[in-house]
Amino acid sequence: MHYKLALIGFGNVARSLAKLLLRKEDLLKQQGITFSFTGISTGSHGFAVNSNGLDVQKAIEFVESGKDISPLNNSQFPIPDSLSVIQHSSADVIFENSPVNTQTGQPALDHIRAALNLGMHAITANKGPVVHGYRELTALAKSKGKQFKFESTVLGGAPVFSVFRESFPLAELSSIKGIFNATTNVILSRMEDGEAYEDSVKYAQSIGLAETDPTNDVDGWDAAIKVAALVTVLWDTPMTPQQVNPTGIRGITSEMIAKAKAEGKRYKLVCSAEKVDGKIIASVSPQLVDSSSPLYGMMNSSTGITFRTDVILDYSIVLSEKPGMKGGPVETAYGLFADFVTIAK
Amino acid sequence: MHYKLALIGFGNVARSLAKLLLRKEDLLKQQGITFSFTGISTGSHGFAVNSNGLDVQKAIEFVESGKDISPLNNSQFPIPDSLSVIQHSSADVIFENSPVNTQTGQPALDHIRAALNLGMHAITANKGPVVHGYRELTALAKSKGKQFKFESTVLGGAPVFSVFRESFPLAELSSIKGIFNATTNVILSRMEDGEAYEDSVKYAQSIGLAETDPTNDVDGWDAAIKVAALVTVLWDTPMTPQQVNPTGIRGITSEMIAKAKAEGKRYKLVCSAEKVDGKIIASVSPQLVDSSSPLYGMMNSSTGITFRTDVILDYSIVLSEKPGMKGGPVETAYGLFADFVTIAK
Repeated sequence: MHYKLALIGFGNVARSLAKLLLRKEDLLKQQGITFSFTGISTGSHGFAVNSNGLDVQKAIEFVESGKDISPLNNSQFPIPDSLSVIQHSSADVIFENSPVNTQTGQPALDHIRAALNLGMHAITANKGPVVHGYRELTALAKSKGKQFKFESTVLGGAPVFSVFRESFPLAELSSIKGIFNATTNVILSRMEDGEAYEDSVKYAQSIGLAETDPTNDVDGWDAAIKVAALVTVLWDTPMTPQQVNPTGIRGITSEMIAKAKAEGKRYKLVCSAEKVDGKIIASVSPQLVDSSSPLYGMMNSSTGITFRTDVILDYSIVLSEKPGMKGGPVETAYGLFADFVTIAK
Repeated sequence: MHYKLALIGFGNVARSLAKLLLRKEDLLKQQGITFSFTGISTGSHGFAVNSNGLDVQKAIEFVESGKDISPLNNSQFPIPDSLSVIQHSSADVIFENSPVNTQTGQPALDHIRAALNLGMHAITANKGPVVHGYRELTALAKSKGKQFKFESTVLGGAPVFSVFRESFPLAELSSIKGIFNATTNVILSRMEDGEAYEDSVKYAQSIGLAETDPTNDVDGWDAAIKVAALVTVLWDTPMTPQQVNPTGIRGITSEMIAKAKAEGKRYKLVCSAEKVDGKIIASVSPQLVDSSSPLYGMMNSSTGITFRTDVILDYSIVLSEKPGMKGGPVETAYGLFADFVTIAK
């Protein structure tokens, strides 16, 4: 079975995905799965559509050398934006990786809606459309006999949604708890080693983890939208980051961290959600944890989640940082890749 | 779809499974899955077959009050053993939970062979047949259009095999590492708190974790057969516990543990397997770990495994002990239950 792929958003993650697909091309062929790229939409390097398949290697070269990809476009239609890429790519699957909009989920929401309406599968690493459109998009996909998938939205590409869906049949989820934001975990880890807050933020930015404006991470909004996405999907209960109403780490001083360390404790930006009397109570806030907590050992850019169910006691998934082995875009790309393979199988 | 079930082995785990199935009966019905029990084989309380379905509640009462279950038998054939239960139960699925035999995998191996040959699905919590018959039984099941499943063999019912199978498509596994034996982890945890080895063993026995003869746990054989099962399945490379050739914890003294503790380290019975130049190197031995290791925080009866792949950096699954919340047979039973639901869906 051959799949035409469109990449909406062509940043680090999308380019890593393209490279991963090329690296695994033979393995996929052995599974009877072949693919070509028929549309690419970039943020600031133009658009390209070629229903016969375009040279993604060239597109990567162009973008990584700051050039525009429009020379690769051979559509007879004008291609001024992402929606026209989707419309004219004749793709079977789109990968939506435009920038996250916590408040509205746009423009990703419109991109995925358009793709599903055109009978395409939609895969995204973007938390926005999950939080702002999970039920609608899932129903729309179903009505078209297609799938809407988003494995790489929460734990940086590490399997979480599929684990609960495939490996916990008929289990009742009572709570989730974890560390979902790597940037704040790096900052808190370095402050524990005596580094000042500002320097820790600078470090997180220097390794490409924190953005120039770290607000989204340090004030807890990235963690909150992940909590909202998990609640929305795992309990099928719509929740927004605003409802999670996060508390960030700005209030945690070096003194507080030193005092905690002396007592064998650590501050972590703890994400949690619990079902109590049929209602979901969710929160994101800095909390003191001791060595008996699965969260205590998650240092630097490590993240993780603990499921509590009626059948298996605390089951934790931990994506741990290994010195010298940088995950990042490659792992997130694998989440998108895994969604594609699951759809194709 | 209705499933006739036979329980071969009716100990704690099998009885917990029966109770769990009854507890989830309505949920299963909502999925279009109904069931009845048509055969039960116990170790020392007899056998019962009733193709119209037998009263499993009564069977549980009988066994838990030391009585024989044969009054529940209504077969016109003599039912002197497990094989005749399998043969005359007309079951669709058997749950094989006879005692583990590390050396040969018998009699579980013969039970599962017989069931598959009769066109039944086979589900087991028994590591023996996985280590001694994985390829044969998987091929036999396939040839009959049935399934051979064993989720609860390694991490006490917590999903491991299904996670790797369903959530890591086309990933290359380079290594696994973990703590697979709860008994030795409890012993080492209590020795760290100053308890003598013998008293720690007695404690592990008192909570029903260690057997009267703790050899299988403390000499590393239980851990070794789990390593062998994981290698056999995840890399499709047959391996026996003898090939793992484990080193147990008898050589670890209170003095060594105290010294390690003073240095912020811990002894753990570390299980590992790694693919090096196409060969699998596996081991079970006590090792010093520091707080940077995901294994460091696994105390008491907590167990866990870390996968390293080409696409996702270290991904750990941890089943953590929660004070006052005992897992044990219920969790193992859920692994069997999950295998059943997966087959039925």
